Amino acid sequence: MPGTSRYPGISYGGRVDALRGLLGERGLAAMALTNLTNIRWLTGFTGSNGFVAVLPDRLVLVTDGRYGERATAELAAAGVAADIEIGLTQAEQHAKFVGALTGPERVGAESLTLSHHRWQAYAAELPVAPADGMIEDLRRTKDDGEVARIAAAAAAADAALAEVAPLLATGVTEHDVRTELEYRMRLHGADGPSYDTIVASGPEHAARPHHEVTHRPIVEGDTVVIDVGGLVEGYHSDMTRSYVVGEPSARQLEMYDLLLDVQLAGLAAVRAGMPAKDVDAVCRQAVTDAGLSEWFLHSTGHGVGLQIHEDPFESPVSTAELRAGDVVTVEPGLYRVGFGGFRIEDLVVVTESGCRILTKTPKDTPCPPSPPTT
Amino acid sequence: MPGTSRYPGISYGGRVDALRGLLGERGLAAMALTNLTNIRWLTGFTGSNGFVAVLPDRLVLVTDGRYGERATAELAAAGVAADIEIGLTQAEQHAKFVGALTGPERVGAESLTLSHHRWQAYAAELPVAPADGMIEDLRRTKDDGEVARIAAAAAAADAALAEVAPLLATGVTEHDVRTELEYRMRLHGADGPSYDTIVASGPEHAARPHHEVTHRPIVEGDTVVIDVGGLVEGYHSDMTRSYVVGEPSARQLEMYDLLLDVQLAGLAAVRAGMPAKDVDAVCRQAVTDAGLSEWFLHSTGHGVGLQIHEDPFESPVSTAELRAGDVVTVEPGLYRVGFGGFRIEDLVVVTESGCRILTKTPKDTPCPPSPPTT
Repeated sequence: MPGTSRYPGISYGGRVDALRGLLGERGLAAMALTNLTNIRWLTGFTGSNGFVAVLPDRLVLVTDGRYGERATAELAAAGVAADIEIGLTQAEQHAKFVGALTGPERVGAESLTLSHHRWQAYAAELPVAPADGMIEDLRRTKDDGEVARIAAAAAAADAALAEVAPLLATGVTEHDVRTELEYRMRLHGADGPSYDTIVASGPEHAARPHHEVTHRPIVEGDTVVIDVGGLVEGYHSDMTRSYVVGEPSARQLEMYDLLLDVQLAGLAAVRAGMPAKDVDAVCRQAVTDAGLSEWFLHSTGHGVGLQIHEDPFESPVSTAELRAGDVVTVEPGLYRVGFGGFRIEDLVVVTESGCRILTKTPKDTPCPPSPPTT
Repeated sequence: MPGTSRYPGISYGGRVDALRGLLGERGLAAMALTNLTNIRWLTGFTGSNGFVAVLPDRLVLVTDGRYGERATAELAAAGVAADIEIGLTQAEQHAKFVGALTGPERVGAESLTLSHHRWQAYAAELPVAPADGMIEDLRRTKDDGEVARIAAAAAAADAALAEVAPLLATGVTEHDVRTELEYRMRLHGADGPSYDTIVASGPEHAARPHHEVTHRPIVEGDTVVIDVGGLVEGYHSDMTRSYVVGEPSARQLEMYDLLLDVQLAGLAAVRAGMPAKDVDAVCRQAVTDAGLSEWFLHSTGHGVGLQIHEDPFESPVSTAELRAGDVVTVEPGLYRVGFGGFRIEDLVVVTESGCRILTKTPKDTPCPPSPPTT
């Protein structure tokens, strides 16, 4: 709830005007906003049910009786002026929302996230047209308040991993490691995990970039990939570190050191003005040059904010250019069934001259830190 | 992954035929299945990207390269025959899915969950028609394997709450209680929480049925509503218990005892053949008879399974009749700003003669159990 945050304020001022500018460029006088992440970004409202009519001269937020008080408080805290209307039933909410949007000649709506059923219901009464991606684009640029929350989420994951990585040893299961990580992130200030924590161990599981945690016990010689992030006031963090349990083999060390060089090269490529696909190309090319192109299974990164995966995406097909204020991952990996895998991922804020790294867990070696002596 | 479950098997046999029967009743020869929960129920496939073409004589599952191996293993374990096709890009997956569905005169699609954008892409190539609610209806009836997973999830929540309820005391925050509950559910066998655990304390927070956890410290005299469930192999549980911290007042005891009677009356009304809305009516009427209709803020329950909220819903507008094998909550509450609130919720399997309760945490008093002596 508003007023209780421990973090610097988020600058909502200017967001509605920026959106109206983009709507104008597309010839839209109004927008039917239904995506709750976009509504949160625009107005500060965090309820699970809400609809925002963006009109030339005002906003109207429609919600139900559970959220009237919260909407009033959150929009006031955000400094966002809107008429708040309560509909007790879904039919009443629909009528109020459509009523607010009646008049303009063309009303934008979010065709990528709105269900076909609800689109049809709007289209029966309003001149709706697809209008996707505008807020997603504006959301890319994080202000100081947003970065502070993402950094706090990253710090909670750093602190949890510092406590849990020393526990990696024969007999501990992937499930155990995940359980301790998510628990300790909360003890270190996170509201919860940012996504389903990945703990992928051994010759098969660690070779899967998107492995889901099992009860497999870790054994000596395993590679272990740990992908963990925190959530703070709606903002996500994202980090991966990779380990070898026991004494690493020469082959494991060689692959780890190669990947670390690749990841550092990717980080070095990040700065405002750089095409996002070039960050991917730098990593991909370095792995290909090492003769390991078959070990490179996914693109190099993505934006992070109110969603764990958001614009811009650093992939070969990306058309985006990095901007100052983008928060993105750099996360190349090497995977091979039989060997296992490694991924090294940092979360960074893009700046004019490069980037600032938010994830602080050491990555110079695949050896887990020793347990603290007590 | 298949083959490693600790629980009795789920009976996938017959599900596809049951769906084909319902499609036939609606004059549909095929269905484009895109809702991942429905795909999981029909085929056992648990990946995060997949499309199933249901045809008169076969199934086709389209997914991407990450999930080929998993799809093969999971469908084999479920005993579901399907052609599995891998598309490396989204465009390739789309082409394979649309290709499989080309031929039939009318193809059902899920208009309530499919985005308008993707609906339009299908409609450009296929004679799609809205076909919602068929699998949701079939999903209602849980088999023994499904009930075993839900019961295990409920048992994990029972075990966690037994450890955490004794910690309720002045100074402990809502966040602390939530953190310990979710951690301990995993220690007791859950894969994770079933939903965002609710810990709502004191005269304002406990008066909100859908409160979100804050850092508010609990103080003596508070009512505390704890709504907690576990997740086991995709199946959810749901339970609420309510407490008074310190010595309850006469007024608190009176309200608690009233609510417990209301909840027991609701449970007594559950059996196969009963209209779902009558379970709600029994609870609502009892609260109204006590002159407290303004304290009754939500309907009485909902189905639980692969989703935390699913059919049937026990609300005044429900048209469903309870069936043997439905798993539903019975969860009346009393809420008033200034007083706080109480909710008592059990999860039950509907039987011909009544119901079997899966949630076992004691509810006879609002006094938390004493901490174990050590």
